[in-house]
Amino acid sequence: MEATPSELTIPRTIEWIGGLDGHVSMIDQTKLPTELVHLQCRDPETVWHAIKRLSVRGAPAIGIAGAMGAVLGIRSYDGADRDGFLRKLDEVCSYLASSRPTAVNLFWALDRMKATAAAARSTSVPELKERLLDEAKIIRDEDAAMCRRIGEVGQHLITEGAGVLTHCNAGSLATSEYGTATAPMYVAHAAGRKFRVYADETRPLLQGARLTAWELARAGIDVTVLCDDMTASLMRAGKVDVVIVGSDRVAANGDVANKIGTYGVAVLARAHNIPFYVAIPSSTFDPSTPDGDRIPIEQRDPEEVRHGFGRATAPDNVACHNPAFDVTPAELVTGIITERGLVQPVNGEQLAAVLTGP
Amino acid sequence: MEATPSELTIPRTIEWIGGLDGHVSMIDQTKLPTELVHLQCRDPETVWHAIKRLSVRGAPAIGIAGAMGAVLGIRSYDGADRDGFLRKLDEVCSYLASSRPTAVNLFWALDRMKATAAAARSTSVPELKERLLDEAKIIRDEDAAMCRRIGEVGQHLITEGAGVLTHCNAGSLATSEYGTATAPMYVAHAAGRKFRVYADETRPLLQGARLTAWELARAGIDVTVLCDDMTASLMRAGKVDVVIVGSDRVAANGDVANKIGTYGVAVLARAHNIPFYVAIPSSTFDPSTPDGDRIPIEQRDPEEVRHGFGRATAPDNVACHNPAFDVTPAELVTGIITERGLVQPVNGEQLAAVLTGP
Repeated sequence: MEATPSELTIPRTIEWIGGLDGHVSMIDQTKLPTELVHLQCRDPETVWHAIKRLSVRGAPAIGIAGAMGAVLGIRSYDGADRDGFLRKLDEVCSYLASSRPTAVNLFWALDRMKATAAAARSTSVPELKERLLDEAKIIRDEDAAMCRRIGEVGQHLITEGAGVLTHCNAGSLATSEYGTATAPMYVAHAAGRKFRVYADETRPLLQGARLTAWELARAGIDVTVLCDDMTASLMRAGKVDVVIVGSDRVAANGDVANKIGTYGVAVLARAHNIPFYVAIPSSTFDPSTPDGDRIPIEQRDPEEVRHGFGRATAPDNVACHNPAFDVTPAELVTGIITERGLVQPVNGEQLAAVLTGP
Repeated sequence: MEATPSELTIPRTIEWIGGLDGHVSMIDQTKLPTELVHLQCRDPETVWHAIKRLSVRGAPAIGIAGAMGAVLGIRSYDGADRDGFLRKLDEVCSYLASSRPTAVNLFWALDRMKATAAAARSTSVPELKERLLDEAKIIRDEDAAMCRRIGEVGQHLITEGAGVLTHCNAGSLATSEYGTATAPMYVAHAAGRKFRVYADETRPLLQGARLTAWELARAGIDVTVLCDDMTASLMRAGKVDVVIVGSDRVAANGDVANKIGTYGVAVLARAHNIPFYVAIPSSTFDPSTPDGDRIPIEQRDPEEVRHGFGRATAPDNVACHNPAFDVTPAELVTGIITERGLVQPVNGEQLAAVLTGP
């Protein structure tokens, strides 16, 4: 069965519209799922604020937004002074980098834009501007191609009639297209297979209910939202054949850091003999972190738990626990789906063999 | 260590204030946790609406509300015609029973009020009214005594410095006082032990965050709210020493039906070698249901998932799963705490021996 993902209608998170005098169009994710609003950004300030207030989120999508924002910041540079142009680019990139100080992928994309300009030594300023727009589009296209490849590697895990459970949003909305955990779903759907996705709502910020359910439904995939405390009984009822989630960082030994709740899903999957897969681009593998115990867990504002969606749901005088991530030990992970192939079984040797080769 | 629960300040869910010309005062649970409002009921209609819109919830609390509502309905009966009085009582009880047609405990309490009146054959109408008020108070006091006994049986499971996890609200708010799952916590607290309770918020209706956290904090117990998908990593971090939950029905073989999410907590507890206890009055044991597979699971309105927080958190065109309960198999239950003693190990023979004797 041949996958034809090009026929899919996956929502495009972020795009450059028109030529050098064009603009960036991005889905305002803070408005989902009730409204589909595209933010039109014509200057780097609008991009900065979009990143800051999470209108665009997900490491790859933020990187692309940064690269495109850099183009918006230098395209009106007046004059032919190449050094002055490069200084201006530096300044714009520093500004954009300040929008989200922990977003490694943002810094990576901005550095790549600067390196592109620096490498084009004999190029005129007007040509440099075009070259940078091309580079921003290449960053976007490379991400889409990598996610699509993850989808092709993982799609065979989703069989006809399967129930597929996912947690949080490692979806198209977090990347340029396809997503990571969702990529096998999009490719399997394009291949004509029928299956049902169960999206954990993913408290406290409800990315599963708000984002994953929205983007899969929009692509025509059958999706059901459930509260996080319903996952266990759904598994016991035999509705889940496979779990696929994303990851923020995979340690050298295969331990997986991902959105809070992922570890619990992995334990439940093991208890019900359900395979548990993690889908990542190989850049998420971090051989410099030996194991999950070395991954620091961000503790977020308790108000996200207490006042999640417009009204207080816990007393003001009570402590609220709010870790952003948890760590799933490698032994609970059936396989890791990457653009370089499927890593299975999951251990340091297999990961190094598949992900750190040429 | 002697427990002294009488010194506790447990919120009183429902009380009769004054004499026969008094009224019912109940905490309006729909206003928690942001406001503590006492509903003052001076007629059966107000009680009916309070039950209907869940201002009072929890089987024992609803039963007490019904019994006290019956007194409100007959106290102004004019005249000395005993048969007329009994017919009026029947009518009031039928009316109150219609407020929540599945509340077995409500019917039980109303039947007990009717039986009390019927049994007092040679009693005058004014005396009957006083007798019924006494009976309603006895129903309340018996419930409080039973819950307190559950607390005394279970309190030794909460050791100094322990982390105690609970799910949903099987608390004082659901009963007359003490609650069931919370009773060991109140008694251990009164005995001077320090411990921390972790309250799963319990989606979709958030009874853990809204109600359990509120009542425990009010009694001076250290409580932390967490989202349901944070339970697993909390256990992995070694913060949970014991789980205590309530139940809606325990089958003959020890399978436990309780709020959705309970089964997942039980699986996670087992995976982390944490003892998992269920606290119930013996009336919750249902020997006529052989096992958990025979317990029907109510499917509730998907809008509770979709619009739980005052605004839409999942797309309108997407299915939402919303079972009210799940079933935890007996083999995952370490022990069942009852007013008749601790049932451990949990199996049909032990349950029958402890709960169905004289």
